[in-house]
Amino acid sequence: MEVLNDLLGFKDLKIYQSKDMFNFSLDSVLLSQFATVNKRNKLILDIGTGNAPIPLILSTKTKAKIIGVEIQKEVYELGVKSIKLNKLDKQIKLINADIKEIYKKYESDIFDLILCNPPYFKVNEKSNLNKSNYKTIARHEKTLNLETIFLISKKLLKNKAPLALVSRPERLVEIINLMLLHNIIPKKIQFVYPKKGKEANVLLIEGRKNGNQGLKILEPIYVYNKLGNYTKQIKKYFE
Amino acid sequence: MEVLNDLLGFKDLKIYQSKDMFNFSLDSVLLSQFATVNKRNKLILDIGTGNAPIPLILSTKTKAKIIGVEIQKEVYELGVKSIKLNKLDKQIKLINADIKEIYKKYESDIFDLILCNPPYFKVNEKSNLNKSNYKTIARHEKTLNLETIFLISKKLLKNKAPLALVSRPERLVEIINLMLLHNIIPKKIQFVYPKKGKEANVLLIEGRKNGNQGLKILEPIYVYNKLGNYTKQIKKYFE
Repeated sequence: MEVLNDLLGFKDLKIYQSKDMFNFSLDSVLLSQFATVNKRNKLILDIGTGNAPIPLILSTKTKAKIIGVEIQKEVYELGVKSIKLNKLDKQIKLINADIKEIYKKYESDIFDLILCNPPYFKVNEKSNLNKSNYKTIARHEKTLNLETIFLISKKLLKNKAPLALVSRPERLVEIINLMLLHNIIPKKIQFVYPKKGKEANVLLIEGRKNGNQGLKILEPIYVYNKLGNYTKQIKKYFE
Repeated sequence: MEVLNDLLGFKDLKIYQSKDMFNFSLDSVLLSQFATVNKRNKLILDIGTGNAPIPLILSTKTKAKIIGVEIQKEVYELGVKSIKLNKLDKQIKLINADIKEIYKKYESDIFDLILCNPPYFKVNEKSNLNKSNYKTIARHEKTLNLETIFLISKKLLKNKAPLALVSRPERLVEIINLMLLHNIIPKKIQFVYPKKGKEANVLLIEGRKNGNQGLKILEPIYVYNKLGNYTKQIKKYFE
């Protein structure tokens, strides 16, 4: 079943979602706000764009052309409908393809920014794979693993340009290790905590291709206040 | 000039300090509270113990024997005086030596916990080296670098036992990389922020020798509130 939702207050943006598939999440909002978007940016890539929440949000922050790649046809088609409805066809181009294949056709050093809200969990025997195949692909590394994201970014990013990822804090060590192996140097990290007194449950990390050392740990983000409502920090993102 | 200070409310502990040398810092308190101290611990090592604030604080949390190694004779002697004054000679043993040399004489796999509040800044031409030699050694990697700490810990720690460090957030990437090289697997991290809205300025990190993966990012610590006083979180550490 397909529904048309507000994209949470972003300048009247609308987004098509499907209850059978995968609704855009707070993670996409957090990543879009965390990533370094520069006025001089001309070309941005969103890997595994889903129904395109990240390109839609970025369109409020930049005039750069945004390419979103999504392997799942049904989710991709939802994204295309949303782009058309919001009249953003000229700025955002969605591609229904496997990034592992089509990246080979791109020239090197062409993107000013790459974003990815990648599958969170490694596929292994213990994985509690979700019954819905849409959700399985979005949540697990069935089609795309972290290493591949770094390999692709190493080729496609301009020199010194950033790759911004959202993931889970328990994967920080692995992510830093893989970034260094691909010479994408971590430059800023922000942790998101569900509420005060809890461990972080979301990791935002940005590295730059061939970047200099110099890492910053930004202020923490808390999602919910004591009453269980969104904090001011989060509400600000939706204004 | 030598002064006798309260060790900030720790069960009436007293500590000798010298204004010409290096006063014990909040970092030592943060590290002592952060490190995993277990009731079954029998032997603990504090590398670069200075005037022994970490062994003194730990003595309120464990009955384990604590060895503190300090290369600087004058600072070591202050530590010895404090240990005697607090009647902790039986639990805490200070050694005036270079850890890079004496660790070779220790057997492998004997410590249940190693702590280190290491020199923060790499020595290079730009380093604004402090005029006082005491402070220079404590703050800069003149006598001990991070890699050496991991090398020593790899030998001296029992299997799965923790190494806890306090450092600067900008060195997180380097520290994780070095830990992995020495098979000391990061298990918990906590960032300390001077106050709300600022970037972190202190990193607390603990890894375990041959540990399993599974990293936790603990709740943030804020040092000062809006009024410029210590927060409840910090005051709690001194009760």
